[in-house]
Amino acid sequence: MRLVIINGPNLNWLGRRQPDIYGSEGLDSINARLQEFAQSLGAELVCHQANGEGQIIDLLQDQADKCQGIVLNPGAYGHYSLAIADAVAALSIPVVEVHLTNVFAREQIRHSQVTAASCDGYICGLGWRGYILAIQALETLVKEGKNA
Amino acid sequence: MRLVIINGPNLNWLGRRQPDIYGSEGLDSINARLQEFAQSLGAELVCHQANGEGQIIDLLQDQADKCQGIVLNPGAYGHYSLAIADAVAALSIPVVEVHLTNVFAREQIRHSQVTAASCDGYICGLGWRGYILAIQALETLVKEGKNA
Amino acid sequence: MRLVIINGPNLNWLGRRQPDIYGSEGLDSINARLQEFAQSLGAELVCHQANGEGQIIDLLQDQADKCQGIVLNPGAYGHYSLAIADAVAALSIPVVEVHLTNVFAREQIRHSQVTAASCDGYICGLGWRGYILAIQALETLVKEGKNA
Amino acid sequence: MRLVIINGPNLNWLGRRQPDIYGSEGLDSINARLQEFAQSLGAELVCHQANGEGQIIDLLQDQADKCQGIVLNPGAYGHYSLAIADAVAALSIPVVEVHLTNVFAREQIRHSQVTAASCDGYICGLGWRGYILAIQALETLVKEGKNA
Amino acid sequence: MRLVIINGPNLNWLGRRQPDIYGSEGLDSINARLQEFAQSLGAELVCHQANGEGQIIDLLQDQADKCQGIVLNPGAYGHYSLAIADAVAALSIPVVEVHLTNVFAREQIRHSQVTAASCDGYICGLGWRGYILAIQALETLVKEGKNA
Amino acid sequence: MRLVIINGPNLNWLGRRQPDIYGSEGLDSINARLQEFAQSLGAELVCHQANGEGQIIDLLQDQADKCQGIVLNPGAYGHYSLAIADAVAALSIPVVEVHLTNVFAREQIRHSQVTAASCDGYICGLGWRGYILAIQALETLVKEGKNA
Amino acid sequence: MRLVIINGPNLNWLGRRQPDIYGSEGLDSINARLQEFAQSLGAELVCHQANGEGQIIDLLQDQADKCQGIVLNPGAYGHYSLAIADAVAALSIPVVEVHLTNVFAREQIRHSQVTAASCDGYICGLGWRGYILAIQALETLVKEGKNA
Amino acid sequence: MRLVIINGPNLNWLGRRQPDIYGSEGLDSINARLQEFAQSLGAELVCHQANGEGQIIDLLQDQADKCQGIVLNPGAYGHYSLAIADAVAALSIPVVEVHLTNVFAREQIRHSQVTAASCDGYICGLGWRGYILAIQALETLVKEGKNA
Amino acid sequence: MRLVIINGPNLNWLGRRQPDIYGSEGLDSINARLQEFAQSLGAELVCHQANGEGQIIDLLQDQADKCQGIVLNPGAYGHYSLAIADAVAALSIPVVEVHLTNVFAREQIRHSQVTAASCDGYICGLGWRGYILAIQALETLVKEGKNA
Amino acid sequence: MRLVIINGPNLNWLGRRQPDIYGSEGLDSINARLQEFAQSLGAELVCHQANGEGQIIDLLQDQADKCQGIVLNPGAYGHYSLAIADAVAALSIPVVEVHLTNVFAREQIRHSQVTAASCDGYICGLGWRGYILAIQALETLVKEGKNA
Amino acid sequence: MRLVIINGPNLNWLGRRQPDIYGSEGLDSINARLQEFAQSLGAELVCHQANGEGQIIDLLQDQADKCQGIVLNPGAYGHYSLAIADAVAALSIPVVEVHLTNVFAREQIRHSQVTAASCDGYICGLGWRGYILAIQALETLVKEGKNA
Amino acid sequence: MRLVIINGPNLNWLGRRQPDIYGSEGLDSINARLQEFAQSLGAELVCHQANGEGQIIDLLQDQADKCQGIVLNPGAYGHYSLAIADAVAALSIPVVEVHLTNVFAREQIRHSQVTAASCDGYICGLGWRGYILAIQALETLVKEGKNA
Repeated sequence: MRLVIINGPNLNWLGRRQPDIYGSEGLDSINARLQEFAQSLGAELVCHQANGEGQIIDLLQDQADKCQGIVLNPGAYGHYSLAIADAVAALSIPVVEVHLTNVFAREQIRHSQVTAASCDGYICGLGWRGYILAIQALETLVKEGKNA
Repeated sequence: MRLVIINGPNLNWLGRRQPDIYGSEGLDSINARLQEFAQSLGAELVCHQANGEGQIIDLLQDQADKCQGIVLNPGAYGHYSLAIADAVAALSIPVVEVHLTNVFAREQIRHSQVTAASCDGYICGLGWRGYILAIQALETLVKEGKNA
Repeated sequence: MRLVIINGPNLNWLGRRQPDIYGSEGLDSINARLQEFAQSLGAELVCHQANGEGQIIDLLQDQADKCQGIVLNPGAYGHYSLAIADAVAALSIPVVEVHLTNVFAREQIRHSQVTAASCDGYICGLGWRGYILAIQALETLVKEGKNA
Repeated sequence: MRLVIINGPNLNWLGRRQPDIYGSEGLDSINARLQEFAQSLGAELVCHQANGEGQIIDLLQDQADKCQGIVLNPGAYGHYSLAIADAVAALSIPVVEVHLTNVFAREQIRHSQVTAASCDGYICGLGWRGYILAIQALETLVKEGKNA
Repeated sequence: MRLVIINGPNLNWLGRRQPDIYGSEGLDSINARLQEFAQSLGAELVCHQANGEGQIIDLLQDQADKCQGIVLNPGAYGHYSLAIADAVAALSIPVVEVHLTNVFAREQIRHSQVTAASCDGYICGLGWRGYILAIQALETLVKEGKNA
Repeated sequence: MRLVIINGPNLNWLGRRQPDIYGSEGLDSINARLQEFAQSLGAELVCHQANGEGQIIDLLQDQADKCQGIVLNPGAYGHYSLAIADAVAALSIPVVEVHLTNVFAREQIRHSQVTAASCDGYICGLGWRGYILAIQALETLVKEGKNA
Repeated sequence: MRLVIINGPNLNWLGRRQPDIYGSEGLDSINARLQEFAQSLGAELVCHQANGEGQIIDLLQDQADKCQGIVLNPGAYGHYSLAIADAVAALSIPVVEVHLTNVFAREQIRHSQVTAASCDGYICGLGWRGYILAIQALETLVKEGKNA
Repeated sequence: MRLVIINGPNLNWLGRRQPDIYGSEGLDSINARLQEFAQSLGAELVCHQANGEGQIIDLLQDQADKCQGIVLNPGAYGHYSLAIADAVAALSIPVVEVHLTNVFAREQIRHSQVTAASCDGYICGLGWRGYILAIQALETLVKEGKNA
Repeated sequence: MRLVIINGPNLNWLGRRQPDIYGSEGLDSINARLQEFAQSLGAELVCHQANGEGQIIDLLQDQADKCQGIVLNPGAYGHYSLAIADAVAALSIPVVEVHLTNVFAREQIRHSQVTAASCDGYICGLGWRGYILAIQALETLVKEGKNA
Repeated sequence: MRLVIINGPNLNWLGRRQPDIYGSEGLDSINARLQEFAQSLGAELVCHQANGEGQIIDLLQDQADKCQGIVLNPGAYGHYSLAIADAVAALSIPVVEVHLTNVFAREQIRHSQVTAASCDGYICGLGWRGYILAIQALETLVKEGKNA
Repeated sequence: MRLVIINGPNLNWLGRRQPDIYGSEGLDSINARLQEFAQSLGAELVCHQANGEGQIIDLLQDQADKCQGIVLNPGAYGHYSLAIADAVAALSIPVVEVHLTNVFAREQIRHSQVTAASCDGYICGLGWRGYILAIQALETLVKEGKNA
Repeated sequence: MRLVIINGPNLNWLGRRQPDIYGSEGLDSINARLQEFAQSLGAELVCHQANGEGQIIDLLQDQADKCQGIVLNPGAYGHYSLAIADAVAALSIPVVEVHLTNVFAREQIRHSQVTAASCDGYICGLGWRGYILAIQALETLVKEGKNA
C-alpha cells in the first residue's frame, strides 16, 4: 500500500514558524517518523509539500493513480480554497484532512472549512500525531474501500 | 489508565437512526469493540450516553476526577452548546471531540463548531473508527500531559 | 391507533403563562378535550410534557415503538434544537409540529424553524385547535403510511 | 358560510409540476374534493387561482366582503411578497395560509415567511390535506370570531 | 402642466385598511383634494392605482409621454421591486416617491428602500399631505428641469 | 422547431431605456433580427414581452406545450422572483436565461440570481447577441434532449 | 408660530462642499430664502447649525420649549446617531427630517436611517426645496397637533 | 421575604473552573455569604444550581409561588436559551439576571443576551458581589412591586 | 473616597423624556438622593451630565485623577461609541456602566454594547436604583483595588 | 484572428472528474472540437490549462498581445479570485467567462461571481457548448471592437 | 508650507493610555519632534487635538484655508464617523490618515475604515513614525498637487 | 542593510494596467527609483514580483534570512490570502504592506484586509511614494528592532 502526505503552505517552515503555536519540530523530522510508522503498517509513505494552491492541485492529480490514499494538510487554503476542494472531490481514493492546531480555538477566519467538505475524514488539534491517526484511518479505508 | 466516552443525543439510537448516514451498527456493539481496543492499550474504557445537555455537563463533571481523558461525541449539541463548551473548558484532563459523519459535508447548521473550541482535538467523518483514533490520541496525551 | 402528544418547555404552564398570548385554558383541560376528540376518531391519545431538551428526545425515542404518530409542540426549542430535529429525523412514524401562536408574527428569534425541517407537517397560530388538526392529519398519515 | 381558497403562482399546474414534490393530482380534482368537504360542513367553497402578485391582492380585496374566511396558498410569493402580506393585514376576516410541502425542509430561500406574519394560522407539509385542515380551522374561527 | 399620481398595492383600500396606521379617509376623497390643489397650481392631476407590480410598470411607461411629472406611492413594492426601480430609472421626467407612514419607524422589512434609489425625491411619514408636498416639488422640478 | 423568447419588465423600452447601459436599438428591431436568425436554423421564433411577474408565469405555462425551448430574459425579476423560478422548474423543455448587461459588474442587488437556478443555461453581458447564442444553445438542447 | 431649522455637520459648508453633489448655494443664502418663505406663512424661522452630535442634542433640547416645530437635517449623523434619535423621541413638538440629496441613490452606509425613526416626517433628494416642504408640513402639523 | 438564587451550568464548579476567569471561591462559600447578607435584610435566601436547561425551567416554575423574587445566573444558557427566557417571561415575580464576568469583554458568542430580555434587571462583571447587588435590587422590587 | 457619576445624552431630560420608559423623576432629584446615599457610605459623589460624545471623554479624562471610581451612564453612546470605550479603557480606576432601562428588551439597535467591553461592571433595567448598586459596587472595588 | 482558451483548475481532469456533473468527455477531445469550430470561423484557437491562480494570471498577461480575444473558464477561482479579476480588468481585448455547469443551481459558495465582474460576457450551464458560444461571441466582439 | 496635525479622541492621553499598546511617550513630546522634522523640510507644523467628533469637523473646516495639507488621526472615530468622512471629502487640500497601531491586528470593530475612504493616504501600525511618513507624503502631495 | 520588495499579482503590468487607477509608470522604472532611494539610505534594495500566491510565500520564505526587512504589496491577495498572512506571521523581520491605491475608497471586496493583520505597518493610497515611505519605516524598524 502506498500513501501520500501533501502538506500545504508554510508547513515547510514547521519548527521555525511560530513554535508556540506549531511546535518546534521540523517537517523533515516529522516526516521521517511518519514514514517509519507507515512502514510498521506495511505501507510506503511519500511526503510532499508545496506553498501554491495550484501546486497542491497538481500534486493531488499526480498522485491520484500512484497511491491508495492521501493525507492532506491544506494549511490556510483549507479555509477558502474551493479549487482544492474540487480537486479532492474528483479523486476516487480516500483523503483525510489534518490540521496541526485546533482551528476552532483560533481566529474566526479559520472556523470556515472549505476543503473538508470534499474529504472523507477530518482531524485537527492533535499536532503531528494527527498525521499518525490519519495514516491509520487511511489504511483501514483503503483496505475496506472508500465507501465501505 | 481510565478513559471515558460520553456520547450525546440520539447516539443511543445508532444502527436504528438514519442508517444510510450513521451506519447500521448499534452503540453497544461499537462500545464493546472500543473497550476491547482500549484494553489492548492497557486502558479501561467506560461508556456513557445521554440525550440531555445538562446531563452531558453532569457526566463531564462527574468523570473529571475519575478518569484521565474523555472522548466526547456531543452530537448536535456540538454545534450550539456553549454550556457544554464551558464544561469542557473547565476540565484539566484532555478531551477529544468525535463526530461519526463529516459535518462539513452536511447542512450549513452543522458547520458551526461550538464545543470544539474547548476540546484538545477534533475528529470527524471516520465513523466508529473515529473513536478508535480518539482513544489512541488520548492515550498519548495522557501519557505526555495535556499541554506537552 | 395510538397517538402521542409531546409538549415542550413552559407548556405545562398554559393558562398561567402570559394568558394574553397563550390563552387562559390549562394544559390538562386541553389534553382532556384532545383525548376525547382522538377517541371519537377511534384513537388513543397519550399526553406528555417536559421542560428539558434531552427529556423531549427521551420521550420521542421512548414513544417511537409505542405509537403510530406524534404531535410535537417543541415550544422555544423548535427555534434552535438541532438535537430534537435529529431525534425526529430518526423516527419512522409521522410527526406533526404544532405551535399555539403564529410565530411568524412574533419576535425575529422565533422566525427560525429548526425542528420543523424534520417533521412531516407544521401547524401554527391556531391555538389549541392546532392540536386537533394535527391529530386529524396524523390519523390520515398513519392510515396511508408516512410516505404515501 | 362562504369560504374562499386563493391559490397563487404555479398551483394551476398541480399534477403536472414536479410531481415528485407536489404530487400527481391536479388542482381541479383537489378543488372538487375540498368543495365536497366544505359542503359537508355546511359551507360553500369558492376556488380561485392566479399567477400574479397583484391579482392575488385583487382577489383578496374582492372576496373580503363576499366570504367569511380565506385559505391562502401564496406559493412562492409567501416568501417575499410584502404587498400580499399588507393585503391580508387589511382584512377583518380570518385567513389561514397553506403550503403543500414542508418549506422548512427545502431550500433556504423558502425558510423566510413574509405573508404568514399577517395570517391567522399557518399549515404546511401536509399536501392537499392541509387545505382540509385550513377549512376546518376557518369554520371554527368564523363561528367564534377572528379574535375570540 | 400635467402630473400623474400612481398609487400601488392596497392603497385603493385607504380608509378601510388598518385605519389606525393609514387613516380613515378613502383614496377617492384624497385624490379629489389633491386634484383641487393641483388645479390651484395650474396643473392637471390624473390619479391611478394598481395592485400589480407589472401594472405599475405599465402605468409608468404609459404616462411617461403624457405628463411632466409623477408622484409614485409604490406601497410595499417600494421595499423590494427592482423592476419598478428600473422602470423609474428609464424615465426622463421627474418622479417623487411618497409613503403615507414613516416606514423607518415600522418593521425592519420596510427599512429597505429599493425604488427610491431611482426617484428624484422621497417623502414619508406625513400622511396624505405628503402627496401635496410631492406635487409642489414636481411643479418646481418640471419648471426648472429635472437636472437643474 | 418552435422557440419562444419571453422578455420581462422594461425590455419593451429597449432603445429608449438608459441607452448608455442597454443600447439604442429597440426590441422590435432586435426581435426581427432574431427571428431571421432562427429561420436560418430552420426554427420559428415567437417573441413575447410582459412587465408583470404573473404575466411571465402565464406566458411560460402557455408556451410550455407550444414550443420546444424558451429564451427567458426575466429582467429585474431574475434577481428575486422565486415564483418565476418555480414556473421554469415546472417545465420539461429547455430554458436559457439571458441578460443584456453583465449583471455582475453592476449594483450588488443584481448579483443575486434567483431564476437562473431553474434554467438550463445562463448568458449575460453580450447585449442582443446573447439572444442569438441562447437560440443556438436551445436548438442543440432541443435536438439532443434537455438532459442529454 | 415659531419654527426652527437645525442643520448638522458640514452643512455650514454648503456651496463650498462637493458642489456637484450638494449644489453651489451657501447656507446663509438658503436660510434667508427659507425665512422669507416662513414669514409668508406667518411664521418666524430661526436657523441653527452645528457640527457636533452633542451640540445638536443641546439645540433640540434648548429649542423644545421655544418653538412649535423643528426641521432637522442631521447630515451624516442621520445614519448612525441613536443619541440624536433619542433626543428627538423626547420632544412633544413635530420634527421633520430633511436631507438635500437622495441618500438611497448614494453609498450603502447612507441607506440606514437611524434618526428618522423618531421623526414625524422624512424628506430627501429635493435639495433646499426639501426645507420649504418641511416648513409647510410643520405648519400644518403644528396647527392640527402632532398626533392629529 | 423569601428570595431564590438559581445558578445555571458549571456554576457548581466555581473555584475549580478556570479560576483566573471565575475566581477561586467555591459556590457553597459564596452562597453562605449571600444567605448571611439576605438575612441581614430580613430575607430568607434559598440557593439552587442545575446544569440542565430544562431543570432551570423546572426550578423557575417550582419557585414561582414559593418566593418573592429570583436571582438568575443562567451561565452560558443566557446567550441562547429562548426556553428559559420564556419561562422567566411567564413569572409575575421580579427576576434579576447576574453574570460573574463582564460578558461584553469576552468572546463574540457571549455578546448575545437572550434570557435578559425577559428579566427585570441585569448585572454583570462584578463577580460574586453581583449577587449581593441583585438581592438588594430584588428586595426593593419586591417591596415596591415589580412594575412600580 | 470621591466618586463621580457621568450621565450621557438626554439624561438631563429625565422626568421629561418619555416618562413611560424612563420614569417621571428628574435628574437633579435623583442625583440628590444618590449623593445622600454616597454620603452614608462615607463617600463624596459628584454628578456630571453632557450630551456630547467628546464632552464625555473630556469628563472621563478630567475626573481620572480626581476620583476613585466612576459610574457611567453613556445613554445611547453605549451602543456605538468606540471613542468612549477607548477613554474608559485608558482609566486605571474602576468604572461601572449603568442603564436605566433593560436595553435587551428594547429595539435591536440597543442590544449591541460597545462601551461595556471596557467597563468593570454593567447594570441595567433597574431604574435609578441601578446607580445605587453601582455606587456600592464601586465602593467595594475601590477599597479592594480594581483587579482584586 | 487568434483566440485563446484558458481553462482553470481541475479542468484538465474533464471526463475523469465527477462525470455525472461535468460529463465524460476529456479536455483534449473538447479542445479539438473547439479548434475545428474556430477554424470554420477563420480563427486560430490556442488552448491552455493551469491549476494555479498565478499561472492563470501569467497566461492572461502572456496572451494579451498574442491574441484578439480570450475564453476564460476560471473554474473554482471564478468564485473568489480577485487577483484574476484584476488581471482580466487590465486587458484591452474582450474576455468571455464560461462555466460548464449552472453554478446557480449548485452550492451557495458557487453563487458568488468575482471574476465575472471584469469580463465582457458570462455563459454557464451549457457544457462544452458554452465554449462554442463564447468563441462566437468573441469573434463578433473582436470584429466590432470591445466597446462597440 | 503650512501643515496641520489633527489628533482625535484619547490621543491627548498618549503615554498614559494603555502604554503597552500605544507606547509611553506623551503627545507633546511627539508633537515637538514632528514639528522639528517638519521644520527640516521647510514646513510649519501646527498640532491640534480634540475628543469631540464635531470639534474635529470644526478643526478640519477651520484649517482648510490656513494650511496646505492635514495629517488626521481620527482615533476611534475613524471606524464609524461618516460625519468626519464627509468633512474630509469637502476639503480640496490633501489629507493623510494615520493610526499608531495596526488596527487590522486588533478587535473586529476596528477593521472597518469609514473616514479613510475620503482621505488621500492611509498609514497605520508604525507608531509615531507614521506621522513622520504622513508629513513627508503631504509635503510631496502639496508640491505636486493633490490629484497629480 | 538589505531590504526586499515583493510585489504581487498584476503589479508587473504597472503602467499598462488601468493607468487611470494605477498610474502610467512601469514597475521597472519605479523599482529603479526605489533602489536609488534605498542606496541613499545606505541600504541595498532587491525587487521581486510574482503573480502566484504560492510564489509570494516562496519569496517571503526565501528572503527571510537574506534581508532585514520586507515591503510587501500583495495586490489583490491582500484581501483574502490567509496563506500569505501565515507566511508573514512566521517571519521575525519587519514587514510593511503597501497598496498603491486607497483600497477603502474602492469596491467593498477590497475593504477586507487579511494579510495586513500579520504585517507591522500598512500604507495605502499614496502611489509609488508609499514604497518610499515603507522603505524609510523599515530602515528605522530594522535599526531599532521589530518589537522595539
